[in-house]
This record gives sequence, C-alpha cells and structure tokens, in this order.
Amino acid sequence: MLRGAAWIALLGILYVGAPGYGDSSAIRGFFADHVSAERAAEQKLLQIPDAANAEANLRQLTAQPHMAGTEASHRVAQWLLAQYQSYGFDAAIESYSVYLPVPEERELELVEPEKQTLATPEQPYEWDKDTYDARAVPAFNAYSASGEVTAQVVYANYGMMDDYRRLADLGVHVEGKIVIARYGEGFRGVKAQLAEEHKAVALLIYSDPADDGFFAGDPYPRGPWRPMSGIQRGSILYTSKYPGDPLTPGIAATPDAKRLSPAEAKNLPHIPVLPINAQDAGAILSHMGGQNVPRGWQGTLPFTYHLGPGQAVVHLKVKMDYQQRNIYDVIARIHGEDDNSWVVFGNHHDAWVFGAVDPNSGTASMLEAARALGQLTRGGWKPKRTIVFCEWDAEEFGLIGSTEWVEAHQQELQQKALTYVNTDVGVAGPDFSASAVPSLKEFVREVTQSVSDPCAGRSVFEVWKERLAKDAANPTGVARTEPKASADEPVPLGALGAGSDFCPFLDHAGIPAVDMGFGGPYGVYHSQYDDFYWMKHFGDPTFAYHAAMGRIIGVMALRFSSADVMPFDYSAYAKEVSGMVADLQKRAKDAGAAPTASSVAASTAAPTPENVEGDSQKETSGVTVELKPAVDAAAQLAASAERARQSLAVLCSSSVDAARIAEINHALAGVEQAFLAAQGLAGRPWYRHQIYAPGSYTGYESVVIPGVREPLDRKDYVAAQAAVADLADALRRAATQLDAVAQLASSLH
Amino acid sequence: MLRGAAWIALLGILYVGAPGYGDSSAIRGFFADHVSAERAAEQKLLQIPDAANAEANLRQLTAQPHMAGTEASHRVAQWLLAQYQSYGFDAAIESYSVYLPVPEERELELVEPEKQTLATPEQPYEWDKDTYDARAVPAFNAYSASGEVTAQVVYANYGMMDDYRRLADLGVHVEGKIVIARYGEGFRGVKAQLAEEHKAVALLIYSDPADDGFFAGDPYPRGPWRPMSGIQRGSILYTSKYPGDPLTPGIAATPDAKRLSPAEAKNLPHIPVLPINAQDAGAILSHMGGQNVPRGWQGTLPFTYHLGPGQAVVHLKVKMDYQQRNIYDVIARIHGEDDNSWVVFGNHHDAWVFGAVDPNSGTASMLEAARALGQLTRGGWKPKRTIVFCEWDAEEFGLIGSTEWVEAHQQELQQKALTYVNTDVGVAGPDFSASAVPSLKEFVREVTQSVSDPCAGRSVFEVWKERLAKDAANPTGVARTEPKASADEPVPLGALGAGSDFCPFLDHAGIPAVDMGFGGPYGVYHSQYDDFYWMKHFGDPTFAYHAAMGRIIGVMALRFSSADVMPFDYSAYAKEVSGMVADLQKRAKDAGAAPTASSVAASTAAPTPENVEGDSQKETSGVTVELKPAVDAAAQLAASAERARQSLAVLCSSSVDAARIAEINHALAGVEQAFLAAQGLAGRPWYRHQIYAPGSYTGYESVVIPGVREPLDRKDYVAAQAAVADLADALRRAATQLDAVAQLASSLH
Repeated sequence: MLRGAAWIALLGILYVGAPGYGDSSAIRGFFADHVSAERAAEQKLLQIPDAANAEANLRQLTAQPHMAGTEASHRVAQWLLAQYQSYGFDAAIESYSVYLPVPEERELELVEPEKQTLATPEQPYEWDKDTYDARAVPAFNAYSASGEVTAQVVYANYGMMDDYRRLADLGVHVEGKIVIARYGEGFRGVKAQLAEEHKAVALLIYSDPADDGFFAGDPYPRGPWRPMSGIQRGSILYTSKYPGDPLTPGIAATPDAKRLSPAEAKNLPHIPVLPINAQDAGAILSHMGGQNVPRGWQGTLPFTYHLGPGQAVVHLKVKMDYQQRNIYDVIARIHGEDDNSWVVFGNHHDAWVFGAVDPNSGTASMLEAARALGQLTRGGWKPKRTIVFCEWDAEEFGLIGSTEWVEAHQQELQQKALTYVNTDVGVAGPDFSASAVPSLKEFVREVTQSVSDPCAGRSVFEVWKERLAKDAANPTGVARTEPKASADEPVPLGALGAGSDFCPFLDHAGIPAVDMGFGGPYGVYHSQYDDFYWMKHFGDPTFAYHAAMGRIIGVMALRFSSADVMPFDYSAYAKEVSGMVADLQKRAKDAGAAPTASSVAASTAAPTPENVEGDSQKETSGVTVELKPAVDAAAQLAASAERARQSLAVLCSSSVDAARIAEINHALAGVEQAFLAAQGLAGRPWYRHQIYAPGSYTGYESVVIPGVREPLDRKDYVAAQAAVADLADALRRAATQLDAVAQLASSLH
Repeated sequence: MLRGAAWIALLGILYVGAPGYGDSSAIRGFFADHVSAERAAEQKLLQIPDAANAEANLRQLTAQPHMAGTEASHRVAQWLLAQYQSYGFDAAIESYSVYLPVPEERELELVEPEKQTLATPEQPYEWDKDTYDARAVPAFNAYSASGEVTAQVVYANYGMMDDYRRLADLGVHVEGKIVIARYGEGFRGVKAQLAEEHKAVALLIYSDPADDGFFAGDPYPRGPWRPMSGIQRGSILYTSKYPGDPLTPGIAATPDAKRLSPAEAKNLPHIPVLPINAQDAGAILSHMGGQNVPRGWQGTLPFTYHLGPGQAVVHLKVKMDYQQRNIYDVIARIHGEDDNSWVVFGNHHDAWVFGAVDPNSGTASMLEAARALGQLTRGGWKPKRTIVFCEWDAEEFGLIGSTEWVEAHQQELQQKALTYVNTDVGVAGPDFSASAVPSLKEFVREVTQSVSDPCAGRSVFEVWKERLAKDAANPTGVARTEPKASADEPVPLGALGAGSDFCPFLDHAGIPAVDMGFGGPYGVYHSQYDDFYWMKHFGDPTFAYHAAMGRIIGVMALRFSSADVMPFDYSAYAKEVSGMVADLQKRAKDAGAAPTASSVAASTAAPTPENVEGDSQKETSGVTVELKPAVDAAAQLAASAERARQSLAVLCSSSVDAARIAEINHALAGVEQAFLAAQGLAGRPWYRHQIYAPGSYTGYESVVIPGVREPLDRKDYVAAQAAVADLADALRRAATQLDAVAQLASSLH
C-alpha cells in the first residue's frame, strides 16, 4: 500500500543537490513525487525499533563468551539466522574453514631483579557474575607465534614507527630484547610487525591507565574505563598486508581452496606477543633500568618510567594451538523488485569474550532495523532493491568472515552491490560519528537529521554537530581519531581505514561504504568487562541509543533500497580528491621533492618574461615527484562529476525506465570500482583502491592515496612518481565512468 | 697593587654600549684605560673559589636542621660571622624580635568512608643518616591558624583564582569544607588566602607526583625528585600584602618597636593549613565522591580524581605555638674607598630543615666569593665602593630578616646602596638563570661571559643560551617560570617577583636588584631530603657549580664595586616599560575597555578628513582606560635615558672627579627609586614600586605594572585609570632623574 502511493504520478525533479537541512520537501535521490511516500514509510519504520527489544537481544547475544571458532559462536550464528528468518528475511549461513589460533599456554614472569609470576587474569567483581565466567578465553593476541624467551626488556612507548626512531636516536636498540609497548596510537598488528622488523624476540602490549584507564576517568566498576587488571585482547595479523584467512589471500576459504602453508603466508607474525594488564606492566616497568623516558612517553603508572634495557629480565612463553576451524556468516535478504541490485548492511557477531559493545550493540541495533523492515514488508511494502543484512564471524581475528564472503562473491558483488554499511561498535555511548566514502557523507548527515536523539529532543545530526563544535573548542584529553570540526566542515566524517568489515568491500571490491555508531567513554574494549553489566550501567542504560541506531540503519536501508537514483555525490568526492592531491603536493614541496617553480610554472601556465627569467637559475636536477598528472586527472574527475550531476538533476518520474535507471545506478556505484587498480598497491596487491587503504604502518587509520603518500614519506620518489601515474589512471577511469553516467542520463531526458 | 694599576692614566672612553659578547677590550661601566686592571683583578679572583671548600662549607651549614627562631639558626649565624671575619670582612650580627610560630600539635585523619590516621612523616632512608634526624621540624605551614575541624573535602586543583572560578562554574562550593589543593602554579600563601576568602574551614596542600614527583623524574633516593612521603614545608604569610614580621609592617622589629596585635596584622591567615605528602593526599583523594575533575586537574596519583564533596570526611587539628623569637642577620663589609657607596649581596641562612639547596648552596657560593674578595684585599686591592655581604635569617617565614633590615636602614640604604644581588637557591643543578631589573640584564649576561661552565668548556653564558634555545625548541614537561627565548631576546632574564630577599630592596626601597642561581631537576624543595646527600648525589656532586657560582658573585662584586660609572642601562629599562604599557593597551582593547579609535586618533595624531569622518560614529560612552599618559611618559623616559646614555658615553678617565662621579652613580641608582610612589600600591602601601610587585593573587611571580594591570583584569576601570596617573608620574620622575644624570655628566665633559 505504501509502495503504491509512491507511484502517484506527480511529476517531480530529482533532488541531487543540497537544500536546507531537514527540508521535508526533498530527499536525496528521490524524485519529488516520491518523497511523501518515502516519508510515510520512514515515519512508520521510525516507530518500530524498541529499546526493550534491543536490551533483550543484547542480553541473549552476550549470554556467554562466543569467540570465533568456538561452538558458542556457531550457536550465536544459528540464533541470528532464526531471528532474521522470524522477521521474514530469506536467510542462510555460509561457512568457511579458516586458520585460527587459540592460546594453549601463557607464562609470564619477572625473573630479575626479583621473581614475580605475572600474566595475572582479569579480576572478577561480585556484582557482575559474567566476570566469573570460566569460559572466557585468557588474554592473548591472535596469530602470535608460539615461543619461549628470557630477555631484558625495552620500553617502546606505543611501539609505533616514530617510537623506534626515537629509541634509535637515544641509542637504545631492541634486538634480542623483549619489547614492552602500550596500546594506542595505532593497530596492535603494526606494533608486532615493527617489533619483529626491529629484531625484538618478543612483544608485550599493555594498557596504560593514561590512555584508557583511571587517568581518562573512573575505571570499571565505578565508571566505564579500564580497571588495572583489564586486558585488551586482539589480533596481530598483519592486516595491512591483507586481511582474512592468512592461508587463502584473495580467494574464499572454502574447504577445497588451494591454501598457502603458514610459512608462505605474508601476514603472520613470527615472534611471541602477549597482551597484559597495567598491573603486570607496572611490575615490569617499575623494575627497569636505563635512561629516563623522553617527554611524552611517561604513562600514569605510579613511578618514573625508564627505557631499559637492564635490571628487569622477563621470561615469556606463549604456545598457540593453530587449527583449521569453521566460521559461520549469516546472510539475510529482503528481496527487492530488482534482485540484481543489492544494498548491503553488516556487522560481525563474534566477540573476544561477551562483546556487549564490540560487536553486539551493533547487531542488537541491526536486529531492530531488520525487524522494522520485516514489519514494513508484511504490511505490503517492497523495496526497489534487495536489502542484504550480514552477520560476520571471525572479524576479531582479522576481518575474516567478511573478507572470505567478499572473496567468494566478488564478481557478483561488483555487479550487484551498490553500497555497504557497517555498524560494528554500534553503541558505546551517546556520541554519533561516522566514516564514509566522500560520495556518501552528505547522505549520512541527512539520514541523521531524520532520527531523533533519545535524550536531547533534537535530531541526532544536531547533537552530533554541537558535540563536534564543543570538542573543537575544548578538546578532551582522550585521543579520538574523529576528524575535527571546522568552519568549512562543521560535521566532518572520517576516512575509512581498516578497523572493521567495510575494508574488503571498499578496499578490495570497490563498493561504496559507510561505517557508523554511537561512541562514548569506553575503556573496556576487548576485555571481559565489555559485558551486559557494563552496557546497562554505562554505555546505554536505557537502550534508547540502540533503538536510535536501529532507526538510523532502518532509514538508511529504506533510502538506499528505494531511492530513484542512488544518492552518490561525486562532486564531493572529486573535491576531496583534489584536496588530497594538493596535500601531497605540499608534502612533496616541504620535503624538497617538488619540481622546481619554473618547471611547474612552465607546465601550468604560459611562460611570461618574469618567470622564465627569474626562475631559470633555480632549476635542480634531483629526483622529484610531479603531481601534475594527478592534479589534472582530479580536475577532469570534478568536471565529469559536475556534468553527471547536471544530467541526473533533470531526471524525473516521467522519464523513468526502470531498467535504464538501474543501469545508471550501477554505473554510478561503478565509479568507486573505477578507483581500483587491478595490480593493487605496491607490495600489497590485495589492496586495490587507489584512494583508501589502511596505512602500512598505522593499520587502523586510513592513509589517503597511500600509493603516493607512503613512498613520498620514506623519500622513495621513483616509486611515488610511478604511483602518481596509477592514481591519475584511476581518476581518469572514474571520470570516464561518470561521463557514461551523464550520457545514460541524457538519453532519458 | 692591582688597585694602583687601575689608575694608569690611559685616557679611554667609557663603555656603555653593547659590543660583541666577550669583547675583552671593554667592560660595561669601566673607562677603557681601567679595563685591563679590572681584567687582571678578575683573573686573579677567578682562580680562588674552590669546589672542595664549598663542599666543606655546605657540609658544615647542613650539619643539622636550623630553622629560624631556633638555637641552631643562631649557631649558623655565629659560624657565618666567624667565616666572614676570617676572610677579613668587618662583620656583625643584627638581631630582631619577630612573631614566629612553631607547630605544637598536628593531627590529620580520614574519618569517612573509613578511618585512617594520616599526617604521615617523611620516610627515612638508611643510607642517608640525615633523614633520621629527630630535630627536623614536622611538616607545617608557617602562620597557619590554630584550629580543629571535621568536614567534607573539596579538591581545588592548584587552589589558585582560576581554579575557584572553575569550581563555581561546575557548581561546587567550598564554604564549610576542607579544601585540598596541590602545590604549584603560585605561592602557597595565595592558596591559603583564597581558601579563606572562599570560606573554606581549612586547607591541605600536597605535592602531586605530576608536578615534582615520579612523573617529573626518578624520585629520591634514585633521583632528584620528590618521593611519595616528601612534604613541602613553607610559609603561608600573606606576603602579597606585606612581607616581614607581621606585627611591624614598614618598621624594624626592634625590641621596643610599636607592634600590632596579631588580630590587627593584615597578612596573617585565619584558617588551619597543613602541608601533606602525596601518600596522605592519595588516601583522601581516592575516597572522594562528587564529579570527575575537569580536564587538566587530574594529577598522577593512581586513581581517578573527583572534586568532592561527599564520601571523604577528614578531621584536622593544627595547634601553633606563636612567640616573639629572635632572629639573626649577619652583615659583613669590605669597606671601599667611598664608604657611602654600597653594593650589597645577600642570601638567607635559615632553612626549613637542612636546606642544602635552599638556601645553603647560595651561601656556600657566597662564602667562596667572599673568601676570594678577602684574599684580593689582603693582596692590596681595595674596592672603590663598599661591598656588603648579608646573610638573612627567617627568610622562610616571609623574607623577615631582610625586610626588617631594609626597614631598619631604609634611609641609609636609599642614600648609599646602589645595587642588591640575591643568590638564594644558588645551585640545584647546572642550569644558570637570573632575574633582574631591566637596567641590569645585559650586565648579568656579560658577567656570565667571563666565567666558565665547569663541564662544558665554554662560558656560563654560552651554555645558558644554548639551553634556552633548546628549551624553546623542545619544552620540558616540568613547569619553569623562566622566560622563553625568542629571536628578539635569545637569553631573556625574568622579572623580579617576591620569592626571596630581593623583594624589600626592590619593591620597598627601590634598590636595583638581581636574583640568580644554577637550577636543575629539584623535587625535594622544603623537604628533609634537601640535604647534603641530595647535593652530593644529584645537585652538584663535584661542587664545581658552587665554585662557578662563587666566581659569578665575585666578578659581579668586582665590577659593581669598581666600575667607574655604574653599569645601569636605562634605555633597556625604558624599552621594557614601553612594551609593558603596550601590553596593557592591548589588554584594555581586548577587554573592550580601550578608548574609541577616534579618541585615540584625535589624541595621537592630527585629524585628517578620513579619520574624523570615518570614526565619528564609533564613539562610545562607557568607562575606558586611557593609557596614553603612560605611553607618553614612557616615551619621555626613553628619550631621557638616551640623552643620559650619550652624556655618560663620553666620560673618560681624564674627566674624573671622584665626588662628581659618585654623585652621578647615586643619581643613576636613584632612577629606580623614582619608580617608587610614596603612597604605595592601592590596598598594599608597603609595595611602592610602580613597575614591579608580586601579583596579589600569584604571590611569587611578578605582575608588571600591578597598579594598572590588576584592576584592569578585574574590570575596575576607574581604579586602573587612577593608577595610570601614578604610573605616568613615576615614569616622569625617573625621566627627570635621568635628565639630572645627563646634566651632571655633561658638566664633567
């Protein structure tokens, strides 16, 4: 019935621009005469997500530890399957056999200057029975090598690239030593990789209370931050090389897949690595000799930190049980009128322990969105496109469930999937934030204008905007990777890195992606304290934000599945790319690697007597990085995007030819795929996107245009110049794709 | 003999400018033909100060606790008297009877949420017998009121003005509560005054390890920073109102002086105040309820800080024994040819406990300078002017020994004393720094060019300059009040506040002053750990910096006592004053209290059609602060200073008339006295200097031009405007005094 109303034949011009926020007469991607029906469907949907339901579902999901590879994880997948089926989804489990470790032996002791047995467990608290659950996996770093060492210790701050440079400056070397580094400032896998590259014999990673413990705020159970015994588990798979099953890069880990041997896998660590709590770290660090740490390296354990080596000697034994283990993805669909056009939503279901926030708050929210969509469907609504909800397994081990599924269905996905929306840490507090490809940033902002913040009595968007303005004026002590608000961009969205399951979709398959959730003070990440008690006391006691997250996912599903023209804004994308290229030019210039002023002037402007004469003596003969091809290609992309925008803007209901519109929509989504290069990035072919990839040595955070940026930063200007050509090719492919969009659209006028 | 050589009649023009540093052909204030004799005397002097001697003297001075008012302090004075006499000084003790408290009872306990007895003492360490000395006074704040209270606790960060504003913003009030505040960011007396003004019933002041404990560096005995049991003793006398004996403001505390009753004294606190160590503070702070502290208030005790009130209840009892007690200043002289011209050097000898750094490192250095000067004298050298070395008592209680002496001899001092040089914390490490009136800053820099750094093989000046450049490039975590180096001023000296005995000389009597010493990582300030062991292990293990400090004092004494024309640079002074006035103008403008553009334009420039027309609509009628009188007076001062400089520059040996030159020198020193206003600053008449005074609510640090700045900051623009007139008067008096100098000098040409 609702769907019928959408077809009332009021002619209307498509909204592809940006009217005043909350302009109820327009919704991005909808013909004007389809807006009121969409609004009606959205109003209906918004009523459905329910806090009590979300709470009950989270309680169910967090009832027991359910790490990937365990039977508990399989049971969660089966329960999710049943839930989606009960909502009316066409759902199934897809299973893969992947190479997963579980810890078998873990020993840690201080042997000098005094004996002390460490590797102390997370402390239980009597009022939270979950903290007594013997099924919780002891703290470990997945994909640690097995090994046993006794050695002196060196403190390496966060254990990132700059920290090793600083240690070298101070004359401290880690070869043959055990490195102890704190969590933070980058992916733990990069810490392991750097320790290995610097020939350390082992790595201990601990949580300093300066970063997510008492210095940030009250620790659990008084507050939401990490207690002294809390440990951050987590994978150290070298996912910057490739994520997913380490033995089947680029192909699905089906039972009969051709597998590498573990020795051949390029993303497996070779030294033992163990995560420890602050109290164990204190026992080691307080006994260390050597120099005092440089400024900024002192954490807030109650003593003066020293770099070592000397005095403290530690014995570490880690034994891992590596096996092929089955993992279980749940894939649930509401079939649309066009079953060859998919809009995909996802989150993982595996957790290190209970995973109330990570990942189940996202799943509990998705379930409410799914229930709402199911209810609309039962009421007669049918989406234009197929809505796919995915629940991934083994994300925690290295984005494995999603990567294997993308690898298994790559061709079909690239033909059918128009978008992927990820909701991992769905609710850790009341602070909405999102990352997205530039073409979808404004879309995300608009969706959040249609959903109310449960506390503030204003839209999620308004509260988000106010928070960013306040943060910009008065930054908090706790590091956020969130971009900062500015006058130009009051509500910025971040760049997509590799922290969750959007990575294979965007970086490998070129599917336009969004990642989003409500954040907050959350110090119990990957510990046993990330449980139902925590959520009920700190994260979202009323579950109102779970319901709000369900509404956001639901509205997004409605708009993506039913928009006339998919709401991609490639002019915005082109503008961001131009900015990134300009930033690279500046970096090249600052590094002294820019071509001389005269060569730039000569290539960008007609020579004048002044610049020819004045600059003729400044020419240098060194290797430089000429970004002009990329500047030109970005300008071409911007021009093509603008032409496509104009052609699309005059489409309206009267010009509709469903098949042709679908063709346009796939062509539009295909612009993202045009950014992929078949050969991938240098040294890591799995990563094919030329604009977005995790940094090789950041691991979570995106390094934009990594192909150029990373060699530029390490002064390999030959490689950087080669990557400029690949980038320009990709930008031109995207421009050509947009030209095709414009042509298709014009043919419908 | 050396003195004779100085009179070889080579005609030479006086050096009053600034040649290249280290130009051995010129010494500021000396006629060219006197330079080589001065250099010869200096070379002789530089050989004499001896590290072993300094070490032996420091061992003697720190042999036992010697707080002012005790017999031990009297014995130290007698020993110093004997030392100076043995060097050939004409020395005597001058005694005053002052109102001094000693602690009789100190009780502190946590009563809620659990009982815990606090006020724990400083921990002894077996390898340092001094830490077992039962004669050490228990930690107390001198001039605390006696009292007993039981109340909830509020944490007030540093307990300074901004902190109370922030508490009020957060809805937390301290009335009826015990405030706990950490040391740092300002004088502890201001913390007490603010707690009292905000109606707190008591104040606990503790040392947070973030500020001078393990977070700054290794604590004693592993390093030089404050251990967890270390306590900072100290006076809380409201010295911003007036220093010295509280019962005899402005007059000497002779036995028969007319005294106020304690109730009449304006600088005595009225609530009990107790200093405590970090471990006691931890016991209280870790039990507090209320809000989490705002950003920047969290110290590094190992828990999350809360503001209170609530949960924690504390019982405090402080009983003080107030008595009239005798204090003993030692005044030692080498009489010069002109016994009516004095150059004065000083430091205090009383210590809270052993006082190895504070104050005895300064005294041990002064003794080596005195021994050297004595030796020169025995070799036939006689200074032109009388050199006075002073060893003050009861500085720690509130600059009492120096203040009483200045008050006793005010008239004579203002007639005879040309300069005062203070060396309190003489050596805490290898980092030289100094504060001075602007007329003497370049003089100080030049003296440090003539003395070698004991480690670096370059001058103290070069090492100082390099350190400041490095600090500016890479600031340390530990707060320094030291000014920052800049391109304009690569080796800045600070402004004189009120942290030591230069205060009565400069702020009350108008004697040009210098304060200097070698600093370093020094966390044991005012604790029992500031002892010989600390100095021998951390501060100056070889005592080479004590010897260097002795050389600096010695060279300064030679130059001040024997310069032909006193080396004051009033052009530099005028330039700084102009900068200060410009800063006040900017502050007035930023506060919206500046006169309108048109009124400024009208009063500073001839009207042009543009500015008359353009600004006519901008006039406002609010109260403003017009700084133009001060700008004009500062310009007048600059012009007079320049004229005086030119007149003095052409003086030379041939024009010498000793009496006339002495007259010029007294006139030059009198410029500083011209900055005094008879009525003093508003609300604190003891402080008479119009440029320099401790801030009313900073206490240590100088607030320049406080008469204008303080009312301007609190938006009392009427008072600020009145103070502008006083300032302009003072600047004009100084200009007139410089005109007199110029005239005197011209008459000698």
